[in-house]
Amino acid sequence: MEKFEVNILGCGSALPTTRHFPTSQVVNVRDKLFMLDCGEGAQLQFRKSHLKFSRLNHIFISHLHGDHCFGLPGLISSFDLLGRTSDLHIYSPKGLEELFAPLLGYFCRGMGYRVLFHTFDTHDAAQIYEDRSLTVTTLPLRHRVPCCGFLFAEKPRLNHIVREQIERYDVPMYELSRIKNGADYCMPDGQVIPNSLLTRPADPPRRYAYCSDTICLPELIPALTGVDLLFHEATFAESELPRARETFHTTARQAAELARSAGVRQLLIGHFSARYEDETILLNEARQQFPNTLLAHESLCVSVE
Amino acid sequence: MEKFEVNILGCGSALPTTRHFPTSQVVNVRDKLFMLDCGEGAQLQFRKSHLKFSRLNHIFISHLHGDHCFGLPGLISSFDLLGRTSDLHIYSPKGLEELFAPLLGYFCRGMGYRVLFHTFDTHDAAQIYEDRSLTVTTLPLRHRVPCCGFLFAEKPRLNHIVREQIERYDVPMYELSRIKNGADYCMPDGQVIPNSLLTRPADPPRRYAYCSDTICLPELIPALTGVDLLFHEATFAESELPRARETFHTTARQAAELARSAGVRQLLIGHFSARYEDETILLNEARQQFPNTLLAHESLCVSVE
Repeated sequence: MEKFEVNILGCGSALPTTRHFPTSQVVNVRDKLFMLDCGEGAQLQFRKSHLKFSRLNHIFISHLHGDHCFGLPGLISSFDLLGRTSDLHIYSPKGLEELFAPLLGYFCRGMGYRVLFHTFDTHDAAQIYEDRSLTVTTLPLRHRVPCCGFLFAEKPRLNHIVREQIERYDVPMYELSRIKNGADYCMPDGQVIPNSLLTRPADPPRRYAYCSDTICLPELIPALTGVDLLFHEATFAESELPRARETFHTTARQAAELARSAGVRQLLIGHFSARYEDETILLNEARQQFPNTLLAHESLCVSVE
Repeated sequence: MEKFEVNILGCGSALPTTRHFPTSQVVNVRDKLFMLDCGEGAQLQFRKSHLKFSRLNHIFISHLHGDHCFGLPGLISSFDLLGRTSDLHIYSPKGLEELFAPLLGYFCRGMGYRVLFHTFDTHDAAQIYEDRSLTVTTLPLRHRVPCCGFLFAEKPRLNHIVREQIERYDVPMYELSRIKNGADYCMPDGQVIPNSLLTRPADPPRRYAYCSDTICLPELIPALTGVDLLFHEATFAESELPRARETFHTTARQAAELARSAGVRQLLIGHFSARYEDETILLNEARQQFPNTLLAHESLCVSVE
């Protein structure tokens, strides 16, 4: 299967600790890199991950809280020092450009590449990115400020040609594209070879959903149903449920219940409150509801499969 | 001796690496903490150092390059999350407040404490901080933008009372303050006991000088003469001298020659270019000129003595 991985650069919450950086992830889809949030230190963690800076052209910022975007000026400066020339696209709720432009205008003046800011609406889901193999759609969340998660969906791929059958029926090369797209093959003598004999199905398209920061939102279930990997914030243990409600965050148990209701394949929890010296309690509470739960940690790389 | 330590939080240069954070240090004078520069990740390194955030009230920014100040928004936000109420003073060349105020106004609105910005002139040395035991004076440097280093100088301390002598001559308590300040003691019978019999000299006041970023400046020698510890940037090895000149930086050898000419006690070099996978070449080139040279590294704590 082609590469589709989630790299955790930071999975702490607002207050960093000795164990966690603030939020940032890199989604690697066939060696195209996409950054989700960019907390302070994201570029330092990126370096350590041995991912390639030059492969990163798109950054998605979920909301305008400092622990999700204070890493931007440093990352943008370093790209310039490394000789970047290609455009960098940053997607966020409105306001980010206005807040960072004065800083970038001063500290990054005369840069060799452009930073292009794009805004998205945080009320209605919308596709905000598309390429040959992938779409990215917003997932409206509910937090103290306008906020969206992101759904990465592979596009359905063409069926695989079964080489031996192509040779057996002596199918000419110029027919292969049609056959990959699902057509049957009509032999010179009029006999029709059904597509199912000539191809085997492509791997099913995979989906990754990123939900941080938010209260637990059951209305997300339709969009999350059957995703292969769901990252969901799990800032608090169940004992802190009132605090979770008050601060518009989710408990580990709630995140797991959502994963179960949506029938996702695997759940990855993160955005841990600084109060936990280790997150075993969060993992245990989640696994009671949804056994296939993983704890995020810095440098973790999870394959979406 | 009372505490006077330099803690290295980051000693890389503009481009961070897997080994180095951008520039930041914390000077600890009798458990009052002073931050020198605040590169991205300074708060994360601060946490790891186990220094106390609540002891930090003064931050000195040498110049307005991102690798010396991009850590400020995160640090300021975290202080607020930790419930800080006391004023935070930030000293810098002019322009810092204007650049960061919009960001702070948005991300840190409603904070429970005040951030007070102070500017200093970068052409003439001036005392910019003073308390009971310490002064901080600027050291004008020469870089691509206005820049100053900082000289931390302990104030001379009062002599120590020699308890046995005080008892021997039956000196009343109310005389002790005068005696600590150098006065002789006149006995009831008129006999004068010289101060030197009643006290022993205080430890000599110590000085720490921080010089980053700059070309090598021989005109600093008078200000640096005899300092106990000199931190000097040493971005490049001697083979990169032309590059050092072009970018207004210093080579390790130049830093060591300056240390030798100024007769400092110990030299600490840092602000290493990302091109060095280890800095042995810089250490060796410096030690040829000035043997008592140390390489900075993250988490290093050097006592000024």
